[in-house]
Amino acid sequence: MAGGVGSRFWPMSTPEKPKQFIDVLGIGKSLIQLTVERFETVIPIENVWIVTSEKYKNIVREQLPCIPESQILLEPCMRNTAPCIEYVARKIYAKYPEANLVFSPADHIVLDVNTFRNVIKNSLEFTENREAILTLGMMPTRPETGYGYIKSLQGNETTSQQVETQRLTSESIHKVEAFKEKPNLETAKSYLAEGGYYWNAGIFIWNAKMVVNTITALVPELTSVFDKIEPYFYSDKEQEIINQYFPTCPNISIDYAVMEKSKEVYVYPADFGWSDLGTWGSLYTHLEQDENNNASVGQNINLIDCKNCVIHTPSERKVVIQGLDNFIVAESDNTLLICKKEEEQHIKDWQK
Amino acid sequence: MAGGVGSRFWPMSTPEKPKQFIDVLGIGKSLIQLTVERFETVIPIENVWIVTSEKYKNIVREQLPCIPESQILLEPCMRNTAPCIEYVARKIYAKYPEANLVFSPADHIVLDVNTFRNVIKNSLEFTENREAILTLGMMPTRPETGYGYIKSLQGNETTSQQVETQRLTSESIHKVEAFKEKPNLETAKSYLAEGGYYWNAGIFIWNAKMVVNTITALVPELTSVFDKIEPYFYSDKEQEIINQYFPTCPNISIDYAVMEKSKEVYVYPADFGWSDLGTWGSLYTHLEQDENNNASVGQNINLIDCKNCVIHTPSERKVVIQGLDNFIVAESDNTLLICKKEEEQHIKDWQK
Repeated sequence: MAGGVGSRFWPMSTPEKPKQFIDVLGIGKSLIQLTVERFETVIPIENVWIVTSEKYKNIVREQLPCIPESQILLEPCMRNTAPCIEYVARKIYAKYPEANLVFSPADHIVLDVNTFRNVIKNSLEFTENREAILTLGMMPTRPETGYGYIKSLQGNETTSQQVETQRLTSESIHKVEAFKEKPNLETAKSYLAEGGYYWNAGIFIWNAKMVVNTITALVPELTSVFDKIEPYFYSDKEQEIINQYFPTCPNISIDYAVMEKSKEVYVYPADFGWSDLGTWGSLYTHLEQDENNNASVGQNINLIDCKNCVIHTPSERKVVIQGLDNFIVAESDNTLLICKKEEEQHIKDWQK
Repeated sequence: MAGGVGSRFWPMSTPEKPKQFIDVLGIGKSLIQLTVERFETVIPIENVWIVTSEKYKNIVREQLPCIPESQILLEPCMRNTAPCIEYVARKIYAKYPEANLVFSPADHIVLDVNTFRNVIKNSLEFTENREAILTLGMMPTRPETGYGYIKSLQGNETTSQQVETQRLTSESIHKVEAFKEKPNLETAKSYLAEGGYYWNAGIFIWNAKMVVNTITALVPELTSVFDKIEPYFYSDKEQEIINQYFPTCPNISIDYAVMEKSKEVYVYPADFGWSDLGTWGSLYTHLEQDENNNASVGQNINLIDCKNCVIHTPSERKVVIQGLDNFIVAESDNTLLICKKEEEQHIKDWQK
């Protein structure tokens, strides 16, 4: 799923080239390239599909030349995750009714790729012949208010220690009791104290038949749109028909449309150094920091008397910064942003 | 005189395109364009000569298409102001022995152009038939430590009020007692308290014959270099010969070589809103400031919770800055500088 616009990371991320296509970590690979790479050895590259906006088609082709054009699905407009998932699941199901699917955002990071691959393997095993929707629940390490939470059925919580000792076998998979929206700090603290709550990583594993049947049962207004589109799958007219009908899809997330309603939702507690990199603050914690706790992405950055800063500038730019403490300095797309880290929630407003 | 490299204004000013060629004030004209414009109505444009480095030839041609190529003299290397003045004075004197000359830096600003023009007219009248070197002394308004000072002969000082009431006629011209290097703050304060001290603006008015004779008498090792060059003035070989012999000139300022030694030096106290724009701080005071005392040069700059800052960014760049107090933010030539105003004396070091 690579259709987001990444507005919180402006100006590094822009509507023309959002976060998933940016080398956010300064390691020579964009987040979508890292995401595809993460599935290597688990899912053959020829089975990888990208759903994105039509305006990012060329960026995807350029960054992922390994993905055939026929497996890059283009949305003519943004309609949140439910239509995205219905589109690719219906299309794959039409040709491969036995398919088992992993849905993953393209703009997150995972530090422990080996564990991630084990979790995905176990997950696919779990859903292969089961009418189950499996979500990955990240072991929470702090009362984060920027994530949604998944609550496992009471008595079924898995502790961090168990995750470790069980070496992430599928035996730690449990039914979900509820999905919780981003909490305030007090609520988040109570979740951690109570146990059995996990961060919702937005990664879902279910087989194609289950996706199609579940959406048919729970989101009929979405199914009816794709009933009109389905006859054109794999035809020359598919894009034209998508462009015509996709905008009539309900604008709805898969969490709201399905996860919060289905009785067959499971959570697999896991711990593989995941982050949605949703804020500059979270990026900062995932970058290497110098002895003054500055994190820099750029080739030629000279920091003098600076501390606790995060700097993200074009690789060709020479940068000299003196005397900043706890600031974000970002330049991209002909735009320069300098602001205090604690003010980053206002970045969306300043773009206008 | 347009050969400087403007290193204190990095990165706005760079060795490739120094300060005199930059629209420092954000008004659509570079400092050299403003300087040439300042002499309009006083000196016919066909009598204007530029001495610069050979590497700035194309910038000068581009920014000053009104100046014929034959009046752009190119130095193959930097040898300070004495060789520059000797070159252009000897060359003009060879063809126009009656010429009366004004030497002016290309990278200063003058706010009151009308008064400036009156001063220049009076100055040229004073030196036309006199064996005199006239310097312009700026009425000091603060104990500035960034300028050299000119001390007029005791009993000859002119007060600020006199400058005003005399309406800057040449009657306020006096002999110079001494040139003083940039003082420390205590010394600068004593200059202002004592009176009769003026800022040295680096503008000199003397006739061509006086320049040639004075340099012959006081800097013979410079004269001897140009004795070899003179036969090639106005010939096809001039540049080749200049390139050969100019590097052998002593590297010496006109202040040190002549002004401090000649007995015929006069000072004309004047007040026309002059600044050498030698520091970011002095540029800051000459830019329009918003209600939070921020001074910005750029087309699309959004300042939030900022005060006392000076921002100089490319006109095409969108800039959002939040939470800075008393900072310099400058971008040019693929380089970004952010630093505290009070640290600007270190900018030269950071360029390396």
